[in-house]
Amino acid sequence: MRAVDIIRKKRDGGELTAAEIAHFVRGATDGHGWADYQLSALLMAVVWRGMTPEETATLTGLMANSGARLDLSDIPGPKVDKHSTGGVGDKTSLILGPLAAACGVIVPMMSGRGLGHTGGTLDKLEAIPGFNVNLDEAAFRKALREVGLGMIGQTAAIAPADKKLYSLRDVTSTVESVPLITGSILSKKLAEGISGLVMDVKCGRGAFMKSRDAALGLAESLHEVGNANGLRINTVVTAMESPLGRAVGNANEVIESIETLKGRGPKDLTDLSVLLAARMVSLAGLAADDDEAERKVRAALDSGAGLEVFRKCIEQQGGDPRVIDDYGRFPVSPWGANFATNTGGFVGWLDAEKIGVAAMKLGAGRLRAEDRVDHAVGITLLVKPGDFVNPGDPLFTLAYRDEATVSEAIALLGEAVVFYDAPPRPQPLVLEELG
Amino acid sequence: MRAVDIIRKKRDGGELTAAEIAHFVRGATDGHGWADYQLSALLMAVVWRGMTPEETATLTGLMANSGARLDLSDIPGPKVDKHSTGGVGDKTSLILGPLAAACGVIVPMMSGRGLGHTGGTLDKLEAIPGFNVNLDEAAFRKALREVGLGMIGQTAAIAPADKKLYSLRDVTSTVESVPLITGSILSKKLAEGISGLVMDVKCGRGAFMKSRDAALGLAESLHEVGNANGLRINTVVTAMESPLGRAVGNANEVIESIETLKGRGPKDLTDLSVLLAARMVSLAGLAADDDEAERKVRAALDSGAGLEVFRKCIEQQGGDPRVIDDYGRFPVSPWGANFATNTGGFVGWLDAEKIGVAAMKLGAGRLRAEDRVDHAVGITLLVKPGDFVNPGDPLFTLAYRDEATVSEAIALLGEAVVFYDAPPRPQPLVLEELG
Repeated sequence: MRAVDIIRKKRDGGELTAAEIAHFVRGATDGHGWADYQLSALLMAVVWRGMTPEETATLTGLMANSGARLDLSDIPGPKVDKHSTGGVGDKTSLILGPLAAACGVIVPMMSGRGLGHTGGTLDKLEAIPGFNVNLDEAAFRKALREVGLGMIGQTAAIAPADKKLYSLRDVTSTVESVPLITGSILSKKLAEGISGLVMDVKCGRGAFMKSRDAALGLAESLHEVGNANGLRINTVVTAMESPLGRAVGNANEVIESIETLKGRGPKDLTDLSVLLAARMVSLAGLAADDDEAERKVRAALDSGAGLEVFRKCIEQQGGDPRVIDDYGRFPVSPWGANFATNTGGFVGWLDAEKIGVAAMKLGAGRLRAEDRVDHAVGITLLVKPGDFVNPGDPLFTLAYRDEATVSEAIALLGEAVVFYDAPPRPQPLVLEELG
Repeated sequence: MRAVDIIRKKRDGGELTAAEIAHFVRGATDGHGWADYQLSALLMAVVWRGMTPEETATLTGLMANSGARLDLSDIPGPKVDKHSTGGVGDKTSLILGPLAAACGVIVPMMSGRGLGHTGGTLDKLEAIPGFNVNLDEAAFRKALREVGLGMIGQTAAIAPADKKLYSLRDVTSTVESVPLITGSILSKKLAEGISGLVMDVKCGRGAFMKSRDAALGLAESLHEVGNANGLRINTVVTAMESPLGRAVGNANEVIESIETLKGRGPKDLTDLSVLLAARMVSLAGLAADDDEAERKVRAALDSGAGLEVFRKCIEQQGGDPRVIDDYGRFPVSPWGANFATNTGGFVGWLDAEKIGVAAMKLGAGRLRAEDRVDHAVGITLLVKPGDFVNPGDPLFTLAYRDEATVSEAIALLGEAVVFYDAPPRPQPLVLEELG
């Protein structure tokens, strides 16, 4: 078997056999028989020709097996995680993780970092002084056992084939492929040792999937491939036109998450966090139906049990739990500014992508994977869609460190607000659900 | 400008600007801004999405300019070359080069080596003891000036971007693309310093282009791109179902070429060589029309003037010109065998690809670019399409060195002959012509 022949077969629209996919995954894992330029040629051929659900399931399973697979069976309780395809202001992980754990779910959460206009859970957690996202396996197991929640980054041992392929896809414009996205997401989740996964597939201008059809296509692929690999999946397709909540950044997003766990969060963020946590509880088999699951999660929110889990999680991972009661302990940017325009009206929508890029320009995100993040800077939305504003009313607050970054951010924010003459029709947050 | 964005644009079906193509060609030339895995990803995107004639013309010109371009303007006379897309038993270059030169054309021929089932002019020439295909520029110019014909390999200085891309295409299944084939052929020819080119696009089972439509598509692309870069092209689409002539190998093909220059060659080989040489004479402006050009070439053949040019060419390039009168001076294989079958009938056709692979198995060709060629071995066809044979009549003669190679060759030859009950309809050799 030769790489060049496997590439040719896919280039010509053929369906690869399990042996051919295994040859490719092995090549991605240790370079055996495949040069990088051959891996990338096959990736482009897959973007072109696609993969059948069977091919995708095989690819996913083999990528999951390309490295270590966590065995959490010695830790009692159902293991369920959540994964999002990436949004702006999406800090639900920090809220639903503690809420689900408070309801008895074991949440072994392995997250990523932000890139481009979307944020990453690891970056947000690292805004908490001392918080360590690089627990070794023993410490991660201890966290799961004692807190029910561990929030870490993927170790190098997890799905090395995906790491290699992802790094190539990123620089060869071969990211946009449903089978490759499916394989990348699920191979890592399979390696986590979970039995259930709640997927939040973001859809809209600020999301990777721009249309509902595209989002549903990915959702269906995730379900088919998850099922084929023994992973139960519940997918919620949610709108990502405007940012979720009001905070876009890192420290400010953690503060908003804590506020939400205290029962004072924005409605969209609270509702989505509760919904996703409830689906985790359902998948874990800890409720008779979705209504009961949601009641349990609401109770954990109202009682402060979720907040207590987050406090313990911070403590367990070396962070300073006093941040929960004293936001002054978060890193603070030296400068702040308000942004207003000389027009007004009803806020129709707030362009999530532009606001995400603006926050990135301030230093809250990364253009390249190797860039450093400034946890203190960010943007806070003073208005949400449907609000009426007069000309000159402040729309955003910017927390910044470097004056030079502000003008670029301001230019983007100026384009990010669309005013309507009448109140916009309220848009649902949840667009579709696949159980 | 970034490689990843250029790849994305082509992946999405966009038309690349001249600046984007220049960025890519520079990357292929010196690696600036482009890793190999990005070059191959773009190549696959081009196989997928194609290129407009404008893009292809720009790519071709830039690849030609990626290295040295020969300036032959100080050598008097019109410079015209011939190029073939590769066939089996195709030794026309060794015949038409001398014939065209005998008619006053300056022929600066840069050829390639054989790969797979097709042979290469350089390998054939090296069957002549002492023949040096690696002349430096001064010696090449001297040959053109004194003999009117130089036959060499491409130097490393010629079209380095094409060299890089071709080596990647070969191992990433991105060879089959009309714009990339056009760019590869014409960039090298443009760099030769010629003003006219006769293209022999082979078509059929033994050729790269299997259908007449595919062959015509390539021919049209070559014309458009040649014109756009100031190179006049005349394309002849010729059948490549059965091998050309009777000899398939190296030394035996040179002998057949000499026989043809002596007026004793097989009809198909003689006719095609004369036709292509005549088109070179026409393109060179040395005849009032195609008929006059053909008469001139026939005269050069009949008078022995072509043979004398070949003799001088061999001498000029360090070879032993005595081979022309004494074939015993060619390398000789130690063993020979006849091949027959126990069926008979009219020979319908002789599978050029299978016979080419059989000759390669004997050692006359290469599976990989780094393989060595044995000039002495090869296959001689004792029959041609239309001949009647009785069961047991010998069909091929094999010249071989290693007994172990014979069984594989025999198996292929057994599948290569198709018998008919009645004489097959004679097939034309020239299928189309684009002037």
